[in-house]
Amino acid sequence: MRKGEATRAAILDRATDLARSAGVEGLSIGRLATEMSLSKSGLFAHFGSKEALQVAVVEHAREQFVARVVAPGLKAPRGEPRLRALFDRWMAWGAEPGGCIFMALSAELDDRPGPARDALASALRDLMDVLATTTRVAIDEKHFRPDVDPQQVAFEIYGIMAASHAAARLVSDPKAGARTRRAFDALLIRSR
Amino acid sequence: MRKGEATRAAILDRATDLARSAGVEGLSIGRLATEMSLSKSGLFAHFGSKEALQVAVVEHAREQFVARVVAPGLKAPRGEPRLRALFDRWMAWGAEPGGCIFMALSAELDDRPGPARDALASALRDLMDVLATTTRVAIDEKHFRPDVDPQQVAFEIYGIMAASHAAARLVSDPKAGARTRRAFDALLIRSR
Repeated sequence: MRKGEATRAAILDRATDLARSAGVEGLSIGRLATEMSLSKSGLFAHFGSKEALQVAVVEHAREQFVARVVAPGLKAPRGEPRLRALFDRWMAWGAEPGGCIFMALSAELDDRPGPARDALASALRDLMDVLATTTRVAIDEKHFRPDVDPQQVAFEIYGIMAASHAAARLVSDPKAGARTRRAFDALLIRSR
Repeated sequence: MRKGEATRAAILDRATDLARSAGVEGLSIGRLATEMSLSKSGLFAHFGSKEALQVAVVEHAREQFVARVVAPGLKAPRGEPRLRALFDRWMAWGAEPGGCIFMALSAELDDRPGPARDALASALRDLMDVLATTTRVAIDEKHFRPDVDPQQVAFEIYGIMAASHAAARLVSDPKAGARTRRAFDALLIRSR
């Protein structure tokens, strides 16, 4: 990696951490520049605008999610074990400080048309597609019934993860993790 | 209502609308003052601080939710019809412009300790309690099996609503409404 690329990657790591708790609107180029010991103009040279930085953060989070959740999850055996592996890894990703950045940004960006919202919607569509495709394979493998609707399963998995996030992080429900697993297990049982 | 109370209520209506799309951090006292033709100091006289305004917005949203979702929903016949009435009214509430303010604020406030976060967590706990109590009544009425866990049902309803929100508002899934109803129906069927 050349120096410019390494700097860009370091800025994006930090910006993604900040966005997880403060949102992408809360990303201050001034603060980022100070933290990274760069000038504001140096930071602008990497991203051009606050909006471009927001899009880059969403893309960076998507790459991290693919590397840490999707790619290793897809190595699990086809069918139900693979769906469970994706779920488990997504839970682990959401249990880190700041939680799942996609959950954090969904509510922030849903009413703000623009490139950052488009990038997030596209990342979520891809995630739903991975879950639906994995469900379809579970039907092919006869782990799930043929009348299971793969997109409905993806929709419900997203909901379980969102409930998990709110229960653990906002309501501080000590049983959040157990409730999350029970809801997912019930979805699997219903699909078999 | 006296003039001061009417002004306060009008400010809160507008502030709650703004918070639904911009979040409570995005609530600018300056902008609110301009929109309401009040001075900034006049607005401060009503709320004292930005933080107090944020808390007042959460409390105002909670009162609106009780008036428009909880109170009329609880008039439905005991048991499953009552749970469905609460769900239907919550869906209608979330389908308005800006969506469900509790969903919008959950992701914003979960990492921001303070009175606004506490007020939101308390409102969500109360909402979960209403859903759990209604589920318990459905067990008493023998609409649901005795081994159904009322808090688990409340958790899963929250998740379905969060998935509905993301599917309709961010991913723009034309089937979001149908998926929401199917997920809720599946939860009811599993509980009978």
